[in-house]
Amino acid sequence: MNTLFYMVPLASLIALFFAWLFYAQMKKTDEGTPTMKEIAKYVRDGAMAYLKQQYKVVTIVFIILAVIFAIMAYGFNLQNSWVPFAFLTGGLFSGLAGFIGMRTATYASARTANAVGKSLNSGLKIAFRSGAVMGLTVVGLGLLDISIWWLILNGFVHEASESQKLIVITTTMLTFGMGASTQALFARVGGGIYTKCADVGADIVGKVEADIPEDDPRNPATIADNVGDNVGDVAGMGADLYESYCGSILATMALGASAWFGDVEMQTKAIMAPMMIASLGVVLSILGIYCVRTKDGASLGDLLKSLSRGTNLSAVLIAVATFGIFRLLGFSNWWQLSLSVLSGLVAGVIIGKITEYYTSHSFKPTRKLAESSQTGSATVIISGIGLGMISTAIPVVTICIAILLSFGFATGFDFSQATLSQGLYGISIAAVGMLSTLGITLATDAYGPIADNAGGNAQMSELDPEVRERTDILDSLGNTTAATGKGFAIGSAALTALALLASYIEEIKIGLHRIGEQVTSVGGQMIDATNASIPDIVSFYEINLMNPIVLTGIFVGAMMAFLFCGMTMNAVGRAAEKMVVEVRRQFKAIAGILEGKARPDYKNCVMISTRAAQQEMILPSMLAIIVPIIVGVILGPAGVIGLLAGALGAGFVLAIFLANSGGAWDNAKKYVEEGNYGGKGSECHKATVVGDTVGDPFKDTSGPSLNILIKLMSMVSIVMAGLTVVMH
Amino acid sequence: MNTLFYMVPLASLIALFFAWLFYAQMKKTDEGTPTMKEIAKYVRDGAMAYLKQQYKVVTIVFIILAVIFAIMAYGFNLQNSWVPFAFLTGGLFSGLAGFIGMRTATYASARTANAVGKSLNSGLKIAFRSGAVMGLTVVGLGLLDISIWWLILNGFVHEASESQKLIVITTTMLTFGMGASTQALFARVGGGIYTKCADVGADIVGKVEADIPEDDPRNPATIADNVGDNVGDVAGMGADLYESYCGSILATMALGASAWFGDVEMQTKAIMAPMMIASLGVVLSILGIYCVRTKDGASLGDLLKSLSRGTNLSAVLIAVATFGIFRLLGFSNWWQLSLSVLSGLVAGVIIGKITEYYTSHSFKPTRKLAESSQTGSATVIISGIGLGMISTAIPVVTICIAILLSFGFATGFDFSQATLSQGLYGISIAAVGMLSTLGITLATDAYGPIADNAGGNAQMSELDPEVRERTDILDSLGNTTAATGKGFAIGSAALTALALLASYIEEIKIGLHRIGEQVTSVGGQMIDATNASIPDIVSFYEINLMNPIVLTGIFVGAMMAFLFCGMTMNAVGRAAEKMVVEVRRQFKAIAGILEGKARPDYKNCVMISTRAAQQEMILPSMLAIIVPIIVGVILGPAGVIGLLAGALGAGFVLAIFLANSGGAWDNAKKYVEEGNYGGKGSECHKATVVGDTVGDPFKDTSGPSLNILIKLMSMVSIVMAGLTVVMH
Repeated sequence: MNTLFYMVPLASLIALFFAWLFYAQMKKTDEGTPTMKEIAKYVRDGAMAYLKQQYKVVTIVFIILAVIFAIMAYGFNLQNSWVPFAFLTGGLFSGLAGFIGMRTATYASARTANAVGKSLNSGLKIAFRSGAVMGLTVVGLGLLDISIWWLILNGFVHEASESQKLIVITTTMLTFGMGASTQALFARVGGGIYTKCADVGADIVGKVEADIPEDDPRNPATIADNVGDNVGDVAGMGADLYESYCGSILATMALGASAWFGDVEMQTKAIMAPMMIASLGVVLSILGIYCVRTKDGASLGDLLKSLSRGTNLSAVLIAVATFGIFRLLGFSNWWQLSLSVLSGLVAGVIIGKITEYYTSHSFKPTRKLAESSQTGSATVIISGIGLGMISTAIPVVTICIAILLSFGFATGFDFSQATLSQGLYGISIAAVGMLSTLGITLATDAYGPIADNAGGNAQMSELDPEVRERTDILDSLGNTTAATGKGFAIGSAALTALALLASYIEEIKIGLHRIGEQVTSVGGQMIDATNASIPDIVSFYEINLMNPIVLTGIFVGAMMAFLFCGMTMNAVGRAAEKMVVEVRRQFKAIAGILEGKARPDYKNCVMISTRAAQQEMILPSMLAIIVPIIVGVILGPAGVIGLLAGALGAGFVLAIFLANSGGAWDNAKKYVEEGNYGGKGSECHKATVVGDTVGDPFKDTSGPSLNILIKLMSMVSIVMAGLTVVMH
Repeated sequence: MNTLFYMVPLASLIALFFAWLFYAQMKKTDEGTPTMKEIAKYVRDGAMAYLKQQYKVVTIVFIILAVIFAIMAYGFNLQNSWVPFAFLTGGLFSGLAGFIGMRTATYASARTANAVGKSLNSGLKIAFRSGAVMGLTVVGLGLLDISIWWLILNGFVHEASESQKLIVITTTMLTFGMGASTQALFARVGGGIYTKCADVGADIVGKVEADIPEDDPRNPATIADNVGDNVGDVAGMGADLYESYCGSILATMALGASAWFGDVEMQTKAIMAPMMIASLGVVLSILGIYCVRTKDGASLGDLLKSLSRGTNLSAVLIAVATFGIFRLLGFSNWWQLSLSVLSGLVAGVIIGKITEYYTSHSFKPTRKLAESSQTGSATVIISGIGLGMISTAIPVVTICIAILLSFGFATGFDFSQATLSQGLYGISIAAVGMLSTLGITLATDAYGPIADNAGGNAQMSELDPEVRERTDILDSLGNTTAATGKGFAIGSAALTALALLASYIEEIKIGLHRIGEQVTSVGGQMIDATNASIPDIVSFYEINLMNPIVLTGIFVGAMMAFLFCGMTMNAVGRAAEKMVVEVRRQFKAIAGILEGKARPDYKNCVMISTRAAQQEMILPSMLAIIVPIIVGVILGPAGVIGLLAGALGAGFVLAIFLANSGGAWDNAKKYVEEGNYGGKGSECHKATVVGDTVGDPFKDTSGPSLNILIKLMSMVSIVMAGLTVVMH
């Protein structure tokens, strides 16, 4: 078994090696004309400056939290002594993943624009391989962090029994998940506010009022807008998926340790399985990435096929491979567990397709939305909100079926309490399967912003309009292939969050054991907490739906999802207003700006975005950390589980709604821009631009932050369980 | 005890007598000029025609459902034989309450406009007293229905023990709650679509495109708009609150019967208490209504004081009176239970105040929202959504505290499973307290639409603009005082829905007993279901938050809230588009229409609203009935409780968000219209009109329907529990 483990650091190094390789290859290509270089540098410097500023603020938060954890651990014995360090590395690696991804993206954009001038294919290659740098960096750093901590804790943790040791190791490792989640939330919220403040501000004055196109160099907010794409869509996404990836593996490891407590061999197998699947996923991702190549002069259809071939190949192969992994590890129910993983993968694909159906203008819903622009912006907003809300139905039902199937396969469809832990393990491993090919699915996701930025560079460098058209094609290609990746990300978030509920119970047991508290079992005996089952703890703390404390928790959890969204939404609104005022001011104050004779003051706009992001990201993010602690102290474990279930239920649905409304508005606008309902500049176009502008914070700020919020609240609860136990 | 019961029918008759009295007084006043009469008749006939059409459709649904219940009851012994009849009367009385309220309102509007021409005070009196007709009709009919069924079932139900008989009676009576909820949902959804389709359509073309004022007779949609106010805001609200009022009393009666199962005397007391509180509430409401009077020439402040005095007096007196009632009934914990009621009342007042803070333009949030109009409609939408989401925080926390306090007072702050039933009774009786003065709080709510319609009549009859200004003052006065009533309605809905979860468990027990199934108790013995406690059933069906079936239910429940909103939102969007097209067509086709020389074709617009409402109300409403049945059959009781908890958690928060966003947009627009940021006709005004238009379906269609949806899903689950039990 120990030999098998070394596959994990090996896979990590392979991933990082290929990330470096693709990066080096990209760097070797030509960055284009001096203007292109200059603009790229402008954007890159702005993005780096912002990220440095962001990391400064986040570092302060991390130090404060680490000190609190240290006091809890060393001062009051409420936590494991490794917790503060694990927490810090999670944050560090997550930040690093975002940083590397963004650095790559900012080097790649001008090169993509330059290459696309020669052929669509060479543009695709640069953008996609640069996206792959991010994908492979995320998985490489994730597996590295997991390997390091596994080795350290294995060497230094000492517990009464080997079985208990595995429980303590895996739950301690969850702490670095909390570090990653904290970093990710700040990255998503800060980056999301930055990018949408600039985007909304640029659109309102530029597109709606002054009638100049997107990314026009005459628009003072355009540099800020392009910087925003990098800090929000690239760095934010990188940190986000690092968090999801590690979270799913760590939660499954923790569940594996607890599901087979007392049987060290089975525990070890169950802990190894997610790491093995993830490691193999790295290799299969790289295989998939190399499949994305077309001959020169390839048609658009060929490019799309090529992209899909890569992701589909990796997904199919990992599905097949899991059968082998579980068999190799010697699980008696190897094919059933593999079917659990398969359920997750199929659910992810379905969610991706449904997302595409509701948000792509190749289908009826978005076309209807575009049609509603004929009666003005109000009906566009109403219809878009209606569309988004309705679009939640199938994904939710799909994920419910996946939950029941992955649980059912793992337990032989025994839904009683006796097999609860094994069933939850089935759910959790399904999430690992969905994210195991992140190396390539993230590449298809991250390459969109790169192509987008390439377009921005082309526009600002005043290249041949054909270049911009081609980058737009690349961008929209990416939107289609990214759907599967997004389906996996959304689906796995729900499954992982579910699994984390079980990890919370596990941590409660450890906390009880630490303070020497016994538990009344379901049978009525007093037993040591480490020997308690999940049903014992559930009954001991009355974590059932008739308990008003649980219901109170559910209310607060659901409210948290809305409050968090409202705060981030308002942050974007407020910041965008400032941006609009500034852009309007420049249009008036700087003579000749609209004729392209005078250069706008880009820096002021960058500053507005930076300040807004830094100021506004603190409060909502801290809320996610503080509320679970308060609920834990006041309402105890029953209230916390209610809180997490409420936030998960409402937050998951809300996230899908926001993402799909936003996506549909974006594409409805593009549909009109393609010449429908009067095309660009028509009244219908203006109405859809309003929709798109409202959709910006929906899909790029509030929506994507919700998944992290849900998991971060779970992680905080887990890390703080010791405190909760003492108070109750 | 039996003598005390006769207070209930007596109170019912008193309420209905005063309702008749106020109606007769109102009818005696002068309806004004022939034009005013004509327009009033137009609106009245349109409203009546629509209501008839609506009731036809709903009657078909009721007959189908009643037949299904009859088959369940008589064919398969899955239900009590009284269920189909109770269901029908609930629907009938709820419809009747809406009908009488609307008839009164349509007679009162021209009279109010006429009276207001003389003095503000006499206008207030007519509008308010007419609102009181609706308030008293709702409570009168509610108590009448309760009295009748209590007497019938007492005479005809035969069970093994007197204690079991009380359980069966009270849970059977919940069925007429389901009838009321079904009727209410159709009324709210159908009426909501009707009114907002007309309103949105009229606003988009009239205000935004043609620049003519609200209710202008040149606008073809204006009659439909005024009809809509009556069928949506008046008839819909009447049916809605009839459902809430009865629901809270019935749920408490059922909880009282189950909490003290085995102790007939305590059961009877606990059943009597809600009826007594409601009956006394009737008398105190009438007292309050008579306190709303001012001298002629009273200032605006006097009027406001007078209105507040009435509602506050009733609320304070009922708080005091509950102490007396519990004492009189001989509860040993009489003052603790009274404090439970007081917790609910205080929570309602706080929620009302917070609602006012977030939605009135006397306060910062709505003023900030108005300010955001300077940067266009997109920022108005983003900020309004942000405002609404943030505004959910304090109401949710308030209701959570009220839940814990009202539970805590009832059990001496023992939150263990042993006192669960009594604690839930405390929660439920708090809801009764909040709605007991509905006679007057509904008057302050219903009089707003009457004043609004009076304004419409004044405008269309081309009266002195001062009349319109005065009706606007009355309308905005109403908005302020209505806040408390709305706080009570929202808060009580959450508490009642919580109580209904317990009633569901009760009905599951009855279902198990009926098919002779035994239950494994918490202690591990096999016992008859009727002797099982709530914790026994919870443990038997594993209704805890680690059960994936429960979590699946929570997901589906949260999704249902969004899906339902999305469907109603889209229905309004689609219908409004048709209306816009029609109004635009008339503006073009009918020569001289905009100069006021030619009469628009009002009828076509009325027809569009009617058809849209009838077509679009069916699917979302049926969903609320079908989904709980499907979930029950597939996932069993654990899934159903999850579903209800998920729908309650997400739906409650979503409802507050929608109501407050909508309210704030409405008032931000009014704030601009008062001359701020350029006033009427400015760009800022147009931006706020877009906000107001989007807010229309938020606050008047989707939002208010959600509370009913949550309760209807609970009621359906309760009535269908027999079927669920057989399948699991």
